Amino acid sequence: MKTLRVPEATVTRLSIYSRFLERLDRNGITTVSSGEIAEGVGVSPAQVRKDLAYFGEFGTRGVGYNVKDLMKYTLKILGLDQTWSLAIIGAGNLGFALCTYYGFNVRGFYVAAVFDIDPTKIGKRIGKLEVQPLDSFPEVTGHEHIRIGVIAVPIRGAQEVADLLIKNGVEAILNFAPMALNVPDHIEVRNVDLSVKLEILTFNLGFRAAQNL
Amino acid sequence: MKTLRVPEATVTRLSIYSRFLERLDRNGITTVSSGEIAEGVGVSPAQVRKDLAYFGEFGTRGVGYNVKDLMKYTLKILGLDQTWSLAIIGAGNLGFALCTYYGFNVRGFYVAAVFDIDPTKIGKRIGKLEVQPLDSFPEVTGHEHIRIGVIAVPIRGAQEVADLLIKNGVEAILNFAPMALNVPDHIEVRNVDLSVKLEILTFNLGFRAAQNL
Repeated sequence: MKTLRVPEATVTRLSIYSRFLERLDRNGITTVSSGEIAEGVGVSPAQVRKDLAYFGEFGTRGVGYNVKDLMKYTLKILGLDQTWSLAIIGAGNLGFALCTYYGFNVRGFYVAAVFDIDPTKIGKRIGKLEVQPLDSFPEVTGHEHIRIGVIAVPIRGAQEVADLLIKNGVEAILNFAPMALNVPDHIEVRNVDLSVKLEILTFNLGFRAAQNL
Repeated sequence: MKTLRVPEATVTRLSIYSRFLERLDRNGITTVSSGEIAEGVGVSPAQVRKDLAYFGEFGTRGVGYNVKDLMKYTLKILGLDQTWSLAIIGAGNLGFALCTYYGFNVRGFYVAAVFDIDPTKIGKRIGKLEVQPLDSFPEVTGHEHIRIGVIAVPIRGAQEVADLLIKNGVEAILNFAPMALNVPDHIEVRNVDLSVKLEILTFNLGFRAAQNL
């Protein structure tokens, strides 16, 4: 495992398997086969086995996987056996939506703070959070130890925000600004471009038409 | 090409190459090598060549690709040689953010209408759009021919919205509700789960720590 490079698609599916296992566990189900996982999340059983094989040997032939063990193991692999506090930078429509986004407040994540530079936004409440001035980021992260920054500001401010976050100990950035950030090698960045998803839809519609399906 | 199955990761990268080519074209650049595309978007040159090979023979050895031709071809493959009108269903924070989302109003896409069922939201303006009652969807799509529906409503309303969209001729759905929709086979659906992106970040941080990098 030490020198293995795990494809991002495998990590994405692992995250999805992990939620499925949580659901099984909540419903009191104790064992599951790769076929059942596959059916539950919509991939092939071979894909499930191949993905899990990156991380070791699981399951017993003919019996399947222990749900609780495999769930815990996937959480550990995904780094979710610890707590990750997020800060949202930018309290526009997108920032507002992200503060209350379900998936940002489960499975070890929580939104600890939201920041903006706009005086008309500072002090506004979003759920249980109050929009704070971006200047106060160093002070806030002193209390909260913010580990992940979510950038939801316009292009022109995004690099400056990234620099500030990194200078103040943020380890990873989820970037919604449609531009590439310059960051040091030790910082993890993922860009979210929702329009790529649209183009997958239109590709598939066109491709299917070309195949006369 | 007829019976080929193209991996979704390839389509995702094709969408990214296509934007990069647009940028080159805007800057008056006429030829580009796979190495330059690779560097511009952050993948390996072999990956670029492999991805493009799914769709035919491009470029001239030692010369590279004609930017304008390859750009047009990628747009055609992605189904972006035609216009796609979107409707956003749900005018909460997320719906608001999506209506004005840059990527939803370029490259053949445009947000034609936004709907909600909440009387306090109907009639509100978002940019140049006015929130319309969901009941009026059939009438609106009669004028606008809405092809893609973007579901930004809570879980409990999502299936009903999907059914209404499909009944009224929508071909594809981008679903932000954290649940699996039941749709007929001929409807393309992609789910957007932003928390998966967070888990890729935490996986990479943990994995890197395990490798002592």
